[in-house]
Amino acid sequence: MADSRAIGVFDSGFGGLTVLSAMRQVMPHESMVYLGDTARVPYGTKSAQTVVNYALSNAAALLNHGPLKMLVVACNTVSSVALPALQAALSIPVVGVITPGAQAVFANKASSIAVLATTGTVTSNAYEISLREMGFAGTVVSKACPLFVPLVEEGMVTGDIAKAIAEHYLGDIPRTVDAIILGCTHYPLLLPTLQTVFNTPVQWIDSGKMTAHFVKKELRKQELLAGQFNVPNYHYLVSDAPDKFEQLSAFYFGEPVEKGNVELVDIKSSTEQVKI
Amino acid sequence: MADSRAIGVFDSGFGGLTVLSAMRQVMPHESMVYLGDTARVPYGTKSAQTVVNYALSNAAALLNHGPLKMLVVACNTVSSVALPALQAALSIPVVGVITPGAQAVFANKASSIAVLATTGTVTSNAYEISLREMGFAGTVVSKACPLFVPLVEEGMVTGDIAKAIAEHYLGDIPRTVDAIILGCTHYPLLLPTLQTVFNTPVQWIDSGKMTAHFVKKELRKQELLAGQFNVPNYHYLVSDAPDKFEQLSAFYFGEPVEKGNVELVDIKSSTEQVKI
Repeated sequence: MADSRAIGVFDSGFGGLTVLSAMRQVMPHESMVYLGDTARVPYGTKSAQTVVNYALSNAAALLNHGPLKMLVVACNTVSSVALPALQAALSIPVVGVITPGAQAVFANKASSIAVLATTGTVTSNAYEISLREMGFAGTVVSKACPLFVPLVEEGMVTGDIAKAIAEHYLGDIPRTVDAIILGCTHYPLLLPTLQTVFNTPVQWIDSGKMTAHFVKKELRKQELLAGQFNVPNYHYLVSDAPDKFEQLSAFYFGEPVEKGNVELVDIKSSTEQVKI
Repeated sequence: MADSRAIGVFDSGFGGLTVLSAMRQVMPHESMVYLGDTARVPYGTKSAQTVVNYALSNAAALLNHGPLKMLVVACNTVSSVALPALQAALSIPVVGVITPGAQAVFANKASSIAVLATTGTVTSNAYEISLREMGFAGTVVSKACPLFVPLVEEGMVTGDIAKAIAEHYLGDIPRTVDAIILGCTHYPLLLPTLQTVFNTPVQWIDSGKMTAHFVKKELRKQELLAGQFNVPNYHYLVSDAPDKFEQLSAFYFGEPVEKGNVELVDIKSSTEQVKI
């Protein structure tokens, strides 16, 4: 049975476009609706309760836009703290980025890993919890890197400042780790700088890319894949500054979003209108 | 006539505590209620319309807490774009930080100035507009410094990274300017680093400090000052993470806030309850 309903994807802002980009490559026949909560970005420095509230209102805004077959949380901070609340509130499957990232580490038989993430994700300890549930018995070092998101949002992903900040955060990561999880959707854009600064061979795990493959597997398992002749639609919702979204999408997404497909939504009103 | 009602002060988050601190020093008998919108911080990167909406809901939340004799907007971004909307909506006087900062420059007879501020404040051109209205005929150079806020929020106000970022933003500010306006409440905490990097004698104008004196003058003019035996109360409202506010206040404020005086508020519900 082919299911042509869209996949809903949301993030605190622009970072999740790296996940959407990977999803579009892996699933070229799937329609997708992306919501960036640009009015309340960033989430990584905010409390778990506030992030849960924001996640529920984002899900409501997406469902308000049209029927969805699956919700993908393209934000590590939300995936770390709000997945149970979203799964309890929604009748469609909800997938986050933590499990796919942790599975990649486990499958690669790493024995000592580092997690680079926002303060919210590090505080939640979500990657270690997920890895331990899979039976991972190795070492986990976590490092909150709060300046990486503003750095990427300024487009300063290379150069002396990016290097100095990367050195600051990577300085005390043991060079003996087998793998480093990029535990925030913004971080893959810093990868060349991180590799230069770390200067030691290691597996770099992009949770977003892993999530794209995970989503495809889940859709197949649940018989929710679109048909191979389906012509996909892409639509973008933002809670602030649609112009900026159109301008910056090329940087995050690898290509500019389709003109005129970006729509401003009032997330608060959506919550009032929709029962999720 | 002595008026013991509190002054309301709001900011997008913690930065406005530098203004509150100056106000408490200049007006030791005045009660003050401070609101930090920590759930939606930062404002400097968001659209003018969203900042206006946030400002109106913050004012409603403050008035919901109790009667106020004046509202002080301790945030340059809000002062730049939302003052007319606030003044139209409220029956009490509303004071921002732009006019006091511009007045200080004008009074000091500077002929060439630079403004360091958030993207929102720079885009609004508010300092230049205010200066021109006063009759300022000199040169104004504006520079958006979007990484300064996250840097200060990480407590990294000195050191190599702070210096590298300051060099990045101050590099093309002509060394011939007479004055530099610190056009964001976070920036005074970076002053020693900015002075080292700029390495040229110049007047540094702290809009927050100027605002404290301006508020006192306005209260006197409007006969709203508290009596000199008034024992002031201080109360703090935040939209997220009251614990973090208690911890960080010493850094921003020079001293920790009074224990137990920090209250979590739901700004959205306040807007629904209160007609402003």
